[in-house]
Amino acid sequence: MLGSTARAADQKAPPGAQYFSVPADPTKELGRAIAADGGYGSRSQFESEVPWRYPTANEYTSWSTTPLDKMIGNLTASGLHFERHHGGIPTIDPLQHTLFVHGMVGMAKKFSMADLKRFPSITRKYFIECSGNGLTEWNKPTLKTVQGTHGLLSTSEWTGVQFATIAREVGLDEGVTWVLAEGADAAVMTRSIPLEKMLKDAILAYGQNGEAIRPEQGYPLRLILPGYEGNMHIKWLRRLEVSDKPFMTREETSKYTDLMANGKARQFTFEMEAKSVITFPSGDMKLPGPGFYNVTGLAWSGRGRVQSVDVSSDAGKTWYPAYTESVPEPICTVRFSFPWMWDGKPAVLQSRCTDETGYTQPTLAQLVAIRGSNGPFGSIYHLNAIQSWGVAADGSVTNVHA
Amino acid sequence: MLGSTARAADQKAPPGAQYFSVPADPTKELGRAIAADGGYGSRSQFESEVPWRYPTANEYTSWSTTPLDKMIGNLTASGLHFERHHGGIPTIDPLQHTLFVHGMVGMAKKFSMADLKRFPSITRKYFIECSGNGLTEWNKPTLKTVQGTHGLLSTSEWTGVQFATIAREVGLDEGVTWVLAEGADAAVMTRSIPLEKMLKDAILAYGQNGEAIRPEQGYPLRLILPGYEGNMHIKWLRRLEVSDKPFMTREETSKYTDLMANGKARQFTFEMEAKSVITFPSGDMKLPGPGFYNVTGLAWSGRGRVQSVDVSSDAGKTWYPAYTESVPEPICTVRFSFPWMWDGKPAVLQSRCTDETGYTQPTLAQLVAIRGSNGPFGSIYHLNAIQSWGVAADGSVTNVHA
Repeated sequence: MLGSTARAADQKAPPGAQYFSVPADPTKELGRAIAADGGYGSRSQFESEVPWRYPTANEYTSWSTTPLDKMIGNLTASGLHFERHHGGIPTIDPLQHTLFVHGMVGMAKKFSMADLKRFPSITRKYFIECSGNGLTEWNKPTLKTVQGTHGLLSTSEWTGVQFATIAREVGLDEGVTWVLAEGADAAVMTRSIPLEKMLKDAILAYGQNGEAIRPEQGYPLRLILPGYEGNMHIKWLRRLEVSDKPFMTREETSKYTDLMANGKARQFTFEMEAKSVITFPSGDMKLPGPGFYNVTGLAWSGRGRVQSVDVSSDAGKTWYPAYTESVPEPICTVRFSFPWMWDGKPAVLQSRCTDETGYTQPTLAQLVAIRGSNGPFGSIYHLNAIQSWGVAADGSVTNVHA
Repeated sequence: MLGSTARAADQKAPPGAQYFSVPADPTKELGRAIAADGGYGSRSQFESEVPWRYPTANEYTSWSTTPLDKMIGNLTASGLHFERHHGGIPTIDPLQHTLFVHGMVGMAKKFSMADLKRFPSITRKYFIECSGNGLTEWNKPTLKTVQGTHGLLSTSEWTGVQFATIAREVGLDEGVTWVLAEGADAAVMTRSIPLEKMLKDAILAYGQNGEAIRPEQGYPLRLILPGYEGNMHIKWLRRLEVSDKPFMTREETSKYTDLMANGKARQFTFEMEAKSVITFPSGDMKLPGPGFYNVTGLAWSGRGRVQSVDVSSDAGKTWYPAYTESVPEPICTVRFSFPWMWDGKPAVLQSRCTDETGYTQPTLAQLVAIRGSNGPFGSIYHLNAIQSWGVAADGSVTNVHA
């Protein structure tokens, strides 16, 4: 609008966006028309951030991370949700898809998607975090950016049928305590879930952020287990088997267990504990000089609401309360901010979250003292330690252990 | 997964979605890979709903409606948000865009987008409704579907800087009472807003549903005025002028006034009052036969939280309380549902919303008694009457006045 539009010349539209020329004064030129069919909207040509795929051996059993440093607010744009697949993304026709509920039930039953949509639905905003979020960071700071260290975290509005509703429909036998959930992907991903959790707040979700759940998130049906580790939110959900014991699947015996300092492994570590991270400033950024900065980030807990967030600029020696910029909801990310006057000297920025149970996010030293750092990546799962960003005198920000 | 995939043969991907073949059994075939750069995700090839453009004389000064009948949950998918433009959609480079705040202020100031992002932000979920939502429906039922009658309504999570923060930055003179907001589109859309409202909860928003605001919604900056009529949420916001009187712009003198029964017009009717609509079943649908149906819809109020929603199947003679499927938030849509056993006889379905101020949505007759039905479309704006859907013995659902 003001000045030249020099950038327009070498501007390229990012994947999925169309390029439109930029008028010198948009008030002097008619804008674009609404498409005849209204069209399905896409983001601006000036926005280009995408998830980053971790360089695993192949791109089918792999993961990609949300660009947390570019996120605005609390929700994750559906197109930027993190992904974690064990056998690629299946293509499923919703008219063919069914959910079979069986085992220790009064009457086994197969539900079509239309059947499920006839039940009353529930809508809640929840984060999902992969238990492997930060797995590279146990022994030494490894990945450069917050997208790498914390990007296996996303938040959506989920809609679907409560498992409790379906349980009433099929009837549960006496003595049932566990439910197996199975996905329709090439990995046939399976996990055992305590019945108590399933009845409390599990959702068989077909909606995400106002529309059908995205293919990469389990279209047409995903199990949502608020606050539990991401892999248990079984995608492409096709089967629930009710039982009186856990099923001891590969994903809860060989994988997704926590190797402790004494060499034994913890099993069935479901809940994602209180955690937070500063997203601005964060790794690989550079501050232009001393002065005022609005430090901001995200805090969350799988055990309930975020109670408070503290920020430190001296590696945890002194802490100050941060502001929360949205009303904390249970098991949902909260954006926080903190006004920081940088004097130009080296600093270490940290944030720590306390949830409504009174639990406070530990330091890495505290966590390693209990959990050890065995295995190729250390303890691998459930790293919820305080993250440190070093700010050098020249303003460069790096991932550090402090 | 089960049975044939007959549909796959003539399946076409909707605009913006890629088509992938559907395996007979997705557990026996490796799924799709994660793209190397992660990619910006899109919806499933099986989802094809789009906004519908109202057949105005041209497609620049026009509007398109959200497919409410296909919506899941409370949020509106960013790609399906309703649109209302007065001079097309401008393309604006955020690096060139500025907001000029001037008039009766201590120090006039021009803010770049980077300047605005340095202030603490606020994140809230609000609906926006065009005051022309339902304008065709005053005198007789006209449009067939709920997308036509109520689709100028959408809900997003908005993030930005509070106007109150910017007001502190520039300083307000004694005696100021109004603020002019101006857009950078070809219509140079302008509205006067009471200062009290601006200081209470106005947001200069750059974020929508976790990412930058969409071009059609005002990229890179939009004024959010919670609960006020949609046209006042000035898109492509470039100027705020502080004054001690309203500016009497075209949009508040010639347009966006309410013609009353006595021929006089009401001006400055800002708030969108309590309203609700059943989205299933709704116009142009057909019920397969008598039996149980989960009636569902949306309720909202520009004056605060939805307190309760009632549903009637006999044109308002008897009312029953509906369930709300999400926790009511201030000035936000709430999905409701009601278990209805249809006996196969003709019925008229209605819903009515009561908000936390105690105000209950009126019938059309009550509204017309006060407002009249002058003008080409009747009173044109602010139709918040109870909507009636007639269900015939053959199950067909139509838009009726009852």
